[in-house]
Parts: sequence; structure tokens; C-alpha cells
Amino acid sequence: MNFRSDNEAPVNEHIMKALIEANQGFEESYGYDKYSVQFKAQCQDLFQCWVEALPLTTGTAANSIAMALSCPPYGAIYCHEGAHINADECGAPEMFTSGAKLIPIAGNHGKIDIDVLRAKLAGSGVHGEHEVMPAVISLTQCTEAGTVYTLEELNAFKALKEEFGLALHMDGARFANALVSLGCSAAEMTWQSGIDMLSFGATKNGAMMAESLLVFNPKYKSQILRHRKRSGHLISKMRYVSSQLCAYLTDDLWLQLANDANQQALFFYENCEGQIEFIHPVDANEVFCRLPVKKIVQLKQQGFEFHVWPGSNDIIRLVFSHATQPQAVQRLIQSINEI
Amino acid sequence: MNFRSDNEAPVNEHIMKALIEANQGFEESYGYDKYSVQFKAQCQDLFQCWVEALPLTTGTAANSIAMALSCPPYGAIYCHEGAHINADECGAPEMFTSGAKLIPIAGNHGKIDIDVLRAKLAGSGVHGEHEVMPAVISLTQCTEAGTVYTLEELNAFKALKEEFGLALHMDGARFANALVSLGCSAAEMTWQSGIDMLSFGATKNGAMMAESLLVFNPKYKSQILRHRKRSGHLISKMRYVSSQLCAYLTDDLWLQLANDANQQALFFYENCEGQIEFIHPVDANEVFCRLPVKKIVQLKQQGFEFHVWPGSNDIIRLVFSHATQPQAVQRLIQSINEI
Amino acid sequence: MNFRSDNEAPVNEHIMKALIEANQGFEESYGYDKYSVQFKAQCQDLFQCWVEALPLTTGTAANSIAMALSCPPYGAIYCHEGAHINADECGAPEMFTSGAKLIPIAGNHGKIDIDVLRAKLAGSGVHGEHEVMPAVISLTQCTEAGTVYTLEELNAFKALKEEFGLALHMDGARFANALVSLGCSAAEMTWQSGIDMLSFGATKNGAMMAESLLVFNPKYKSQILRHRKRSGHLISKMRYVSSQLCAYLTDDLWLQLANDANQQALFFYENCEGQIEFIHPVDANEVFCRLPVKKIVQLKQQGFEFHVWPGSNDIIRLVFSHATQPQAVQRLIQSINEI
Amino acid sequence: MNFRSDNEAPVNEHIMKALIEANQGFEESYGYDKYSVQFKAQCQDLFQCWVEALPLTTGTAANSIAMALSCPPYGAIYCHEGAHINADECGAPEMFTSGAKLIPIAGNHGKIDIDVLRAKLAGSGVHGEHEVMPAVISLTQCTEAGTVYTLEELNAFKALKEEFGLALHMDGARFANALVSLGCSAAEMTWQSGIDMLSFGATKNGAMMAESLLVFNPKYKSQILRHRKRSGHLISKMRYVSSQLCAYLTDDLWLQLANDANQQALFFYENCEGQIEFIHPVDANEVFCRLPVKKIVQLKQQGFEFHVWPGSNDIIRLVFSHATQPQAVQRLIQSINEI
Repeated sequence: MNFRSDNEAPVNEHIMKALIEANQGFEESYGYDKYSVQFKAQCQDLFQCWVEALPLTTGTAANSIAMALSCPPYGAIYCHEGAHINADECGAPEMFTSGAKLIPIAGNHGKIDIDVLRAKLAGSGVHGEHEVMPAVISLTQCTEAGTVYTLEELNAFKALKEEFGLALHMDGARFANALVSLGCSAAEMTWQSGIDMLSFGATKNGAMMAESLLVFNPKYKSQILRHRKRSGHLISKMRYVSSQLCAYLTDDLWLQLANDANQQALFFYENCEGQIEFIHPVDANEVFCRLPVKKIVQLKQQGFEFHVWPGSNDIIRLVFSHATQPQAVQRLIQSINEI
Repeated sequence: MNFRSDNEAPVNEHIMKALIEANQGFEESYGYDKYSVQFKAQCQDLFQCWVEALPLTTGTAANSIAMALSCPPYGAIYCHEGAHINADECGAPEMFTSGAKLIPIAGNHGKIDIDVLRAKLAGSGVHGEHEVMPAVISLTQCTEAGTVYTLEELNAFKALKEEFGLALHMDGARFANALVSLGCSAAEMTWQSGIDMLSFGATKNGAMMAESLLVFNPKYKSQILRHRKRSGHLISKMRYVSSQLCAYLTDDLWLQLANDANQQALFFYENCEGQIEFIHPVDANEVFCRLPVKKIVQLKQQGFEFHVWPGSNDIIRLVFSHATQPQAVQRLIQSINEI
Repeated sequence: MNFRSDNEAPVNEHIMKALIEANQGFEESYGYDKYSVQFKAQCQDLFQCWVEALPLTTGTAANSIAMALSCPPYGAIYCHEGAHINADECGAPEMFTSGAKLIPIAGNHGKIDIDVLRAKLAGSGVHGEHEVMPAVISLTQCTEAGTVYTLEELNAFKALKEEFGLALHMDGARFANALVSLGCSAAEMTWQSGIDMLSFGATKNGAMMAESLLVFNPKYKSQILRHRKRSGHLISKMRYVSSQLCAYLTDDLWLQLANDANQQALFFYENCEGQIEFIHPVDANEVFCRLPVKKIVQLKQQGFEFHVWPGSNDIIRLVFSHATQPQAVQRLIQSINEI
Repeated sequence: MNFRSDNEAPVNEHIMKALIEANQGFEESYGYDKYSVQFKAQCQDLFQCWVEALPLTTGTAANSIAMALSCPPYGAIYCHEGAHINADECGAPEMFTSGAKLIPIAGNHGKIDIDVLRAKLAGSGVHGEHEVMPAVISLTQCTEAGTVYTLEELNAFKALKEEFGLALHMDGARFANALVSLGCSAAEMTWQSGIDMLSFGATKNGAMMAESLLVFNPKYKSQILRHRKRSGHLISKMRYVSSQLCAYLTDDLWLQLANDANQQALFFYENCEGQIEFIHPVDANEVFCRLPVKKIVQLKQQGFEFHVWPGSNDIIRLVFSHATQPQAVQRLIQSINEI
């Protein structure tokens, strides 16, 4: 009964089927296949705007290429202190930007405190060239705490971005879960909220290895392909990445899978509320809650798999995915309510 | 009738089957899955030595991480002027090494002229710290001209490597084709010939996206994992890479697929020898030959797909793969013999 | 009446004289001049140990080469949040290390809070390769707040460095001022306290442009020269850097100049104590104090030059140097005591 | 009797005097001193155009910052195979550009063979993003063979630069010697010939350590200062660099010094022509000639200092500088004519 990570879930059957169907005869390589063309068209339909769509196999690649596009080597990238790009990518953004500086910003529930960020930006520049140059704000949606920025919150970052002439990036490793949570359009949650570049993830939500960098700002256009190639991320048999992405976006599969995951998390929350402490609001498919250490031990003995959150001994993270079984959730609720 | 690239061929059915079988339930992510463990064990069996096996999705990543392991930023990497790392990776080795210098060496038929290389190495150092420091020799096996270094040739590079205290890397994007061509053991063609690091390719020979960096020299051990992660090449659902590699090595599938490809190239060569000029020896699965320009046009009209080699208008490259159909080869021979 | 920076002070006459004397006839270039040899010998005498001495023209170069020697691109450098390498070098350490991450640590009066650092180090590693690898601690002596780590404090960092297998660097842009303040030997304040590499500054204390990286740990020996060259920091007419450093160390000139500066700061402190608030202890030649905004305006009108500290409107920094005139200090004290 | 390098010559007395005069009282640091302002004004007068003038202490820094401004990390820089940036800077351009590729071009007498370059450029792009992107041509004036590109030659490169949309850089470590040799204006030899950026050297021609990057193309303006700072090349007491440059340009000192050096080289050439083989035309202050090995040994015994050129045993380089004494040249001619 796995609640450890949506990365441990299997591939959704529709995506697997698409892969099998794509495996017919010869097909052009290095992104000139028909699936890559189709995926780009689907993105333009979905977002209702100009989009450059760059299929990739990891979210770290998507995030880091986005940083390389928008941040000079002497630039600064502002992100939440717990952001994946800051805490979990072993310096990949620094590698791709050739040494830019990530400025970790504090904030509750995984969200950047915009007042802290505004103060940082307002105070920058007094040392002139001795300081790195503010260049990018990166937001994670859903955040690393499982929460979701509202459209109002996003638009406050848009205003800040415009005020200081910065680029705005969204790490959407769990983009579908956030979109379903807000119930708005993909355009509203991205370029209409000032997002220039989106790391659009599918792997955690049912794909095998299929991520994408979507670029909404045409000024980055000429550099995109070479950044992918020079980092070793141009897949030769690209049809097997792009066909996943096509299937993912077809017939709202991606929204259904995310909705399933979110609903299960919500069900868990509603059935345990009042019994245990929830560390962060449950906005999407992740739950952080505090349990007695004894209970944690017992749950593990009962076959539940999950992470005890680093730095604590009594906070656990539960991830619900498209592959989470309702019975497993029921049993988990039952076990916890025995406390 | 595709002779353009083995990258355009579909995935072999055994590998596809392995992917489907791997898609059962939950499995640990980020390389802790059972397939990654199995693949490493298979490599140790195959090479009969200590091996660190790093599953990856592109050959450029494998090559570039190898360079990052063995070459300091102020170092020099010696390779053939037509080597993939020099000509076709958009500066990826420079990115991963943070600025090392690739020194292109001339040589016939895609092979480094070892006398030219020896002279370069012998002449290095006179400017002291003003020059980059010799660090790595990289050989491609099969070469970019479709030829294969003999064991004698490899051992000459081993001697040179030892004389000058360098690392020796093999870009084995078509490793299986070379191994089948030489008929020696995998150990003989690698670490017994002084190879410290092997980019071990499977994609061109029937996999979907499955490459690997095999490290034979334990001194690089501690750095390997972080170089993969910081370049965005740690795949979350790693089971889907490693299971391909496991199937590839099981029951000699890899050798059979390579042998099929090589035999078809040989068959073509034997049936056209004397009719047309072959630019390079046909050692494995690639053929470079000169044709009248009119014939090239005609072949394309007849539905044959292939590359006219950049920089010429009458040299074509034909790539034979596990998926090349014998009838297509027959028809190609027939058409050419009509000249 | 300049209290703005010791970088605005002129060159001491003994050092100017040494430059004029060095300007006789031809002399070997690129560090093979007799002054470079002599400076290294003087360092070995001074520190009583093996030293590699690398003459340079900026402290940023010295700090950054030190980082390049000791930190891999996937490594972490721990420093005070206000450290020059973090706040005032526009990402130079990131450039020289090819993307290492600086981890800013809080602490009062410019000193790293060792408990905060210990907690950071103890918590590192739980994400494995997903995190950067702890590699270096960098201390500034005197700190950016003008304070000086005691030998006891330094030895606590030595213990931490050894516990976690890290390198220990000292940014000694104002090394002489710190040494005079502690009254210990240069060896005690450096390698005997676990320091592997020292950025040894002379410019602020009377030289024209003469800094040096002193390396006490022989394991970095082979890489030092090429890091200097590849960053463009190998001066061709090196005699004009090294002769400054030789004169600086001759007849205790450096200690006299630093003592003069420190004494003037102390004199100021003793004559204003109780009148105004001192933000940090006055350990060396820098004073941070709070004044009424009106007074600040008045002082500027009276011809006193100094920095109002960024982020405040009523804290000023006063820097006392070898070139500060006692009358200027007297007048400053007098003006302030009129409050 | 030193003919080894103009880097071994002392500082010209006028420049030394300027340094002494600059050493009066306090002066703003980090480039805000009056000499830096004056130097920029002098450059604008001299070149009769918009110029951004960045004082530096090494030519490698000037060259490398120029490359960082004009070449993306996935770009290609075309230079002569013997160019200083390719052969003698230990990978500095690669470091500053974060991994761009230098493409060495052959050519006689140190000059790029423009037909070879044109063919390279014409052939680029066929592999699309798999190749690095052509970005910069770098010319050395005087070349590393002591020759000087004519205005006609420079204008051919200008045409090529425009055809392919590249930047054009001039490494002018010996700019004054080339200018005196051509007898044209500084504007004609630079921006009027399409030069976007000039590494303007003074050190070899009489300064202590004073080089400069002059940028004629305003599009690079916003990035210049931070590239200098992040590479550690912002000198705190900048007045001591800029005052050298001001004196260098005052009253045509720079042209007189270069003319003296060139005339002595010419005198040597005219008095030995016919006696010995000259390897390259003698256009400026460097002479490459072939001598019997026995003669080389004898000259060294007689106290003449010079380099035997790497890779040969009978070719020597003689460098004439502002400090070369006519008697030394006379004695050298006399000794050689005894052959």
C-alpha cells in the first residue's frame, strides 16, 4: 500500500497503449516525428496561445533549461527555500545557468512569502555590479508542501515580475493536480498569470517518463533547442516521449488522473480531520500530517509505505496518485482512526 | 525502406514485452528498483569485473558524464575530428566538464591516427600552465565511419594512455555491432584494453531509450551519482530504463540484433563490391559509398531513405539495423546494380 | 576626511618604493621573477610550514580559486549570509566552481553561528544525490562586521570541519588587522586552526593591488596554477605584484600598518562609547554605529565620507586605515560628541 | 640582452611617473576614480565613436570577457589555430563562455585563411541543433606570428561576419605595433573594419599591468560590468590601472613606444636579410627566423636571451620592445652575420 511517491506508481494503461501503438515501423528521430508535432499542436489548443513545446524525460531538465533560458550566469533566481530546484536537484539549475545564484525565500505552506520577496527585490542593486542581478522568480504549482497558489496569489507575483522586469517560471511537476484543484483554465493558471515558462510534468500523473518545457514567451525561442541538446536531453527515438504526452492530453486523461488522485487525498483528509494534525492545507494530492511515533511504526508494520519527513520524526507525507487503490486509503483511514 | 538511421527503427519486441512486464504495481524510484540492481549484476557477469552501471536515456549524457568524471575544467580531451562528442553534441562535453577543450585528431576511416595523437601529446606541456592539461582519450567503437578498432589498435591506445597518464573512454553507441564484428569478449574490448569508462548504447540496437555509462575504474566511484543528478539525467521511474537494459542483455538478444544488422550490411557490401566505390571498410552495420548523383535521386524516388553525407553530394550513408527487412536490402542491391 | 573604505586609501610609501626599485631592466615574466620566489620563501618563514603562495590582484580571485580547489561543481560551501563571497562577488565562487551552491548561515556580528551550521551539516545527506554535497566552510577574518573570530572559535570550526570531512577556507582580506587584534602567530590563526587555504590580502592595508592565495594543504598543489591561468589571473609582469607583497612582509610593515588602523578605530570607540550605539564589537579597523539621521547629514556636510549601511538609514560604517589622519579622527569624535 | 618577450621589459618612465602622481590621498574605488573616467573619454576621442572601456590587468581577461559577451555557451568561436585564446590561455575562453567551442582555423603566417573559414561557415548548420552555433570570429592583430592583417584583409572578415551574422573580435595585445605598422587610424583598424570588441593591450608596450576591453557595439553594454566582477577582475584601487592607460594614450606615448620597437625589428631584418631565413614577414616588433643550431647555442652563450620556438630546434623568436637597447640589436646583427 504505497503512499510514498507518485513516482513509484505504474504507467497508466492508456499511455502504455499509446506507446505500443507508436511502435510501428520507422519514424523520424530527434523530434521530427509526428507525435512531437501533434503534441505541440495540442499544447497550443490547450493554452490558446503561442507555445514552444520541448518534450523531455525529467522535470529537473525542464526546470534547468527554463533557468538557462531566462537567467544569465550573473543572475539571481528567487524561489521558495524548499523548492525542488533549490533543495532536490543537486545544483542542476546552477549547472545549466553556468553559475546563477538561487535565493531561497521563506514562506508558510511551501509558498513564497511575497512580502519577503518584495523586500529582497527592493533592496537589491545597492551594491551595483558586486551583486548578482535579479532575473527570475520560480513558483512550484502544486508547491512542495502540496498546496496550490490561487489565481490571486499568482497575479500578485505577475505584478512583482513586471515591476522588477523579471521572468516568471512555474515548476508544474504536479501541474494537473493544481489545475484540477483551482478549476480554472490552463491559460489562466499560466501565461495569463504572467508565466513565461512552464515545466509541464506528466510522469507523476501516469506517464512513464514524459515531461515537457512549455515556453510562452517568444523571446526565448532561438535558444531552446540547443540548450536541450547540449545538456544531453535530446532523445533520439523521441516518438516514445511525445506519444506519451499526446495520449496524456487526449480525452482529458490527464485531468481525470489528477482528479482521482486529488479526490482520494481529500477523502483521506475529510475522514481524518479532527483526529490528527494536518501540517499544510490539503489542496491537491499530497498530505502532510503529524502522527504519534508509535503509530508511524505500526503503520509501517501494517504494510503502509510513506516518507517520514526529513528533519522530523513524527511528520509523514502521504502521496495519492492515479494508481492509489481506494481500499488502501480506507484501510489507512481506519488504522489512523484507531489512535 | 529506411536506411537513414538505426534511431528511426522501432523497439524490438522482447524489449517492448519487458517494459510491459515491468509495468506492474508500485516500484521504488530513482534507481532503487529491482531492474537497476539486476542490470548492474548482469554487467558484472558480462564484463567479469567491478563495474558501476549508470542507466541513462541518451548517449550524449553517457559520454558527457564520462568526460566530467575524468577531465578537469582545464583539461584536454583527444578524439577523432569526426567524433560524435566533437561534432554532434552541441558542446555537451564542454558543458559537463565546465569548459574542457576537445582536441580533434585526424585519421582515416574515422579512426584516430595514433601517430598524430602521440606527436600532439609529446609536444604538450612546453607552455606549462598556459596550455590545457592532457586528460582523456575518447575512442568511438564502432567509429563514426562505421569501422571497428581492432584489439591491436585498442592496445596501442592503452599503451599511450599509460605513457601519458590519461583516462581512456569508449563511446559505444554501437558497441554490440563492434563486439560482434571483432568476435572477442566484452572484457577484451574494454577494460582489458585499458578502457576506464564505456558509453554502452542500446537504443540504436533495439531499445526504446536505454543507454548506460559503465565505469570500470573505481576511482571515479564517489562522483558518479551526483554528476547524473545535477545534469537532470536521474529518471524518476527508472525501472522503465533498466528493464530495457536487462532484457537487452538477456539470452544474448543484444548480440543477435547486432549480428542481424551487421550481416545485412555485409550482404549489401558483398553484392555491390566492384560496382560502386566504398568510402570506408564495412566492419559493422554502416556503409558509406559513392553513387552517381542521378542514381541518388532515383533511389529516393524509389522510396529508399538515407542520408547524403554532409559536405558531399555523391556520398551516401546506409545504416542497417535489427529492423531492416531483407527484401528492402535485396531491392536496394538490385537498384544499385542497374547502374 | 575619508572613512569610507580602506580601498580608497593610497599606497604606502614603502610599497611604492619597492615598485620603483623593481622597475630595473628585464625580468622573467609569469611568476618566474625573483620577487615571486622571495615572497614564497617569506610566507614559509612567516607561517612555519609548507605553503603554496599564488600572487593575485584581487581578493575575489583568491577566494574563488580557493573554492575551485576545494569544492566540486555539485558541492556546497557554507559561509555567513553576509560573507563577501556570498553577497559581494556577483557569483564569482559559482563561476570558478562551475556551479557550486553557497549556503548562507546566520549569526550575530558577522560570525557564523556554529550551532546553526552544525545542524545544517547534521541534516544533510538525507536526500542522497538529490542534494549538493557538503564540501567547504569559509570564514572571513576580520568578518564583514569588523569582528574577529577568537582562536577558540576557530578551533570549534576546525573540529566541525574534521567531523564532516570538509575543507576550511579563510577570507583574509583584512588578515593583518585580525592578526594584530588577536596578538597570536600567523600559524596559530591559520593552519594550526585547521585552515587549508587563506586569501591573504594586502591591498586594503597599504598595497596597490596585491593579494595572494596561500594554500597550506598540499593535496591541492597540482591544480593551483592552471586555475589561476584559466581565470585570466596570471599577471605577465608579475614582479610588480610580488615585489609589493615582499615589501609588505618586510620589517613587519604589514603589522605596523594594521596596528595603526586598529588603534585609530579603538581610539574612536573609546572616545564615543556611551554617547552612541555601537552595532558590533570593535575588534579591528571597522566601526558600525547608529547615529541620528540629522547627524549623518551634518557629518557629510562637514566633509566626512563614509557609507550609510545598505538596508538602514541610521547605521554608518567607518573604516580606519593606515592612511587615516589622527586629526580627522579627532574632528570626527568632536563632531559626534556634540550630539 | 633580452629578446625573449616584451613582457619581461620594465615599465616606461612616463607610466611610472603617472602611477606616482596618482598616489595622492584618497580616491574612489572600483572604477569610479577620475582616471577611469578620463580613460574612457580618451578612448572616445581616439576611436571617434561610442566606446565602453573596461580597464583590466590581463589580456586573457579582456579576450575572455569579450567572448562571454558575444558567444552563448552553445556557440562556436573561430580563430587561428595558433591564436593566444586557443593555444595559450588554458581554456579561459571556455571558462568565461561556460563551454563554447573554439574552432581552430589554419592559415599561413599566423593569419586565418579566410577561404578555409568561409568553407567552415558555409558547411555549418547541416546538423541543426546537434552542432554548436557560429557566433564569433577572433583575429589577433598583430598575429602570433608577428604579422599584421591589412585593412583589405580586415574588411574581408567584416564582410564574412556580416554574411553569417557573427561578432568580430580583435585581440590587440600588440595593437599599437600593428597600428603603427599599417599607418592608419585606430578607427579604421577597428570598428570601421567591423570590429565589435577590442582587447586593447598596453602591458607589452610599456605599461605595468594595464589592459582594456573596448566595446564598440552598444548591444553588449548591459552585461559588461558584471562579467568583469564575477570573474574577479574588478580591481579595487582601479586608479592604479586607469592612470597607466591615461598616460599611455597621452602625447602619443603609445605610438612612440610601438614605433621604437617596430623600427628596431625592421633594422634587424634589413641587416640580416639574405643571410638567414625569415619564417614570417616582419610587420611589427617580432621576428621569427631560422638559425643553425650551433649558432643558437653560441648566441645564448654570448648572453642573448630568446625563445627557441616550441616544436622546432632551429627557429627562434626575437621580440623587440620599447626597452630594447640599440647596442644589443647591433651586437645581435653582428653575431648573426658572422655565420
